[in-house]
Amino acid sequence: MTDFIPVPRRKHDALVAAAFLRRGFQADEVAPAVFLCAEAARHGVRPHIALRALFTDHYFGSATGGCVPGAEVEVVPSRFPSSEVWNANKKFGPAVAYRAIDRAIELADKYGIGQIAVDNASPYLWGAGYVMAAAERGFIAYTQATSPLAEVAPFGGNRPTLGTNPHSWAFPTSPALGFPLLVDWITSNIDMHRVETARRTGKSLPPDSAIDANGQVTTDPHRVHALLPFGTHKGYGLSLINELLASFIGGSLPSLRSRLTENPKEKNTATFFFQVIHPEALSSSNFANGRSQLDNLKHVLADILRGNPDATIPGQLEADFRFRSDEADGLLFTRGEIDDFNKLAESLGQPPLHED
Amino acid sequence: MTDFIPVPRRKHDALVAAAFLRRGFQADEVAPAVFLCAEAARHGVRPHIALRALFTDHYFGSATGGCVPGAEVEVVPSRFPSSEVWNANKKFGPAVAYRAIDRAIELADKYGIGQIAVDNASPYLWGAGYVMAAAERGFIAYTQATSPLAEVAPFGGNRPTLGTNPHSWAFPTSPALGFPLLVDWITSNIDMHRVETARRTGKSLPPDSAIDANGQVTTDPHRVHALLPFGTHKGYGLSLINELLASFIGGSLPSLRSRLTENPKEKNTATFFFQVIHPEALSSSNFANGRSQLDNLKHVLADILRGNPDATIPGQLEADFRFRSDEADGLLFTRGEIDDFNKLAESLGQPPLHED
Repeated sequence: MTDFIPVPRRKHDALVAAAFLRRGFQADEVAPAVFLCAEAARHGVRPHIALRALFTDHYFGSATGGCVPGAEVEVVPSRFPSSEVWNANKKFGPAVAYRAIDRAIELADKYGIGQIAVDNASPYLWGAGYVMAAAERGFIAYTQATSPLAEVAPFGGNRPTLGTNPHSWAFPTSPALGFPLLVDWITSNIDMHRVETARRTGKSLPPDSAIDANGQVTTDPHRVHALLPFGTHKGYGLSLINELLASFIGGSLPSLRSRLTENPKEKNTATFFFQVIHPEALSSSNFANGRSQLDNLKHVLADILRGNPDATIPGQLEADFRFRSDEADGLLFTRGEIDDFNKLAESLGQPPLHED
Repeated sequence: MTDFIPVPRRKHDALVAAAFLRRGFQADEVAPAVFLCAEAARHGVRPHIALRALFTDHYFGSATGGCVPGAEVEVVPSRFPSSEVWNANKKFGPAVAYRAIDRAIELADKYGIGQIAVDNASPYLWGAGYVMAAAERGFIAYTQATSPLAEVAPFGGNRPTLGTNPHSWAFPTSPALGFPLLVDWITSNIDMHRVETARRTGKSLPPDSAIDANGQVTTDPHRVHALLPFGTHKGYGLSLINELLASFIGGSLPSLRSRLTENPKEKNTATFFFQVIHPEALSSSNFANGRSQLDNLKHVLADILRGNPDATIPGQLEADFRFRSDEADGLLFTRGEIDDFNKLAESLGQPPLHED
């Protein structure tokens, strides 16, 4: 088992805030981004979101015009009361996404279901964070976004023209399970981070995860030309859904996304889609044995797991890590992560995250 | 290539209507069910929906109390304007589902997005039919339902406690592609019909599709104890979503569904969920190169397929078969299907579907 080093959350937050402030982000952007990074660390998400966010911002973000610190979100006029479309004007993704999920909750509370489509977005980094926040408040939430780069080939194709396009659903199951049930994954089998790690460590890739330049399936990380959708045509269909919604919202050609210099007349930004449902808006008020909706949920989950002691509920791993973090009264990092954070701290003239 | 025999649609419709009328269904139920069966045949869906519907009705439907001919749908009072919950009172699934998709379109037209949750439902047989109907009218549509029987084990488990739980999405892409883009599949790798066919024909199952009584993966159709979700934990998560929504709507224990005699206090009916989005409710009105939303959709789809001549768009196969059917000016059946229909016709005292 990996050894983790506990770090007080306030020390993590101070360092990550300093890094985002140095990149020019404003207080209203830094606070939600720091919160997202801390929550991701608390739930054991690796690689660490803060380090990934800085990397992303360097290559696709404020350093290259893909993200604009201090930008203002515009709500696009619309005749549809339970839907909103926002022009994010490339504002920092986490700041836009937390605000969007809050607004979608307000719409769901009023209309039963609400949706927010966001154009001109910069990456939101961890969709699970936003839908779990809604689930903790008692709502069913879903989000999807287009990924920065086209790295995945369509089922049957060779050329990568799709993002790893994630989907995240969360359900208000905390009163039943102790944590939100979370279905959260990318639509390829693996991501490029996994390929890079395999290259560094000399490992093979899982089967059916990537193809080489000739379109042949390969497990050699050095021969990867494109990633494959998970579950053949089914994962491909789910990945297409992100590109389709993006095309209706305002997204442009996926093969050029984040590569504006190749065709400056195209847009190169991401899109987000958020949807929130009020559980009462689904209820027939007629549950077996006179149960409440919550009690019915508990019985259904217990029925699915009965006789299946080795099956897990999605979200359990994240909840277990969250429990460990809370027990340690801090955030848990590996030695390598601490080293990376300490290097970051030094470059910013900040105190190290942790000293032995 | 399979030889197909063209049959005038009116002959198919007359025979299927006679079969449903004989089972006690009313005119307002028979008409949508016949339309669904004819559309499924026109799009090449196999096994044939009409024959499957009669089988389903015999085992889980009007013959056993799972479906009640002539039942009335009740709209459950709700404070949420863009959502409705219906108690289908076990009315015939296709009649309820077409009405639900029509109502969801009305809600989407007014609010941007609309949802209909249906409790006490009997199987709707072919979710694709309803979402394609919405897509042909210019809307983005999604449906899911719980399947009659728990045949799929959770990821990591042995005991089948989940349905094959289908998801169907359709997009209004006809002006761009000539057909609605359709993402439509069950959340297991294969269904039990495929297992039965493999038993009959002495064939093996595809890998990672089923487990035996010891929880070991098997390709032997005679050893199948449970089916597996597609894409390991990802397909499992998608299957769980159906059971979760069902538990919020009014569905009961999935392991008892369609098996009421085992515990008469539980409900044994299916649930449906429909969601429709108005494309304008997603539009930022800001597409690259001054494109319209439709033109942007065309460019995005072309970009995904560029350099991928062997990739197909989901829905293409169905569209191709539809074109063949329309060219033949009828519905296309195999010799075996004609034989089954002719036997059905004889049992009903109706003229045969086709004579050589």
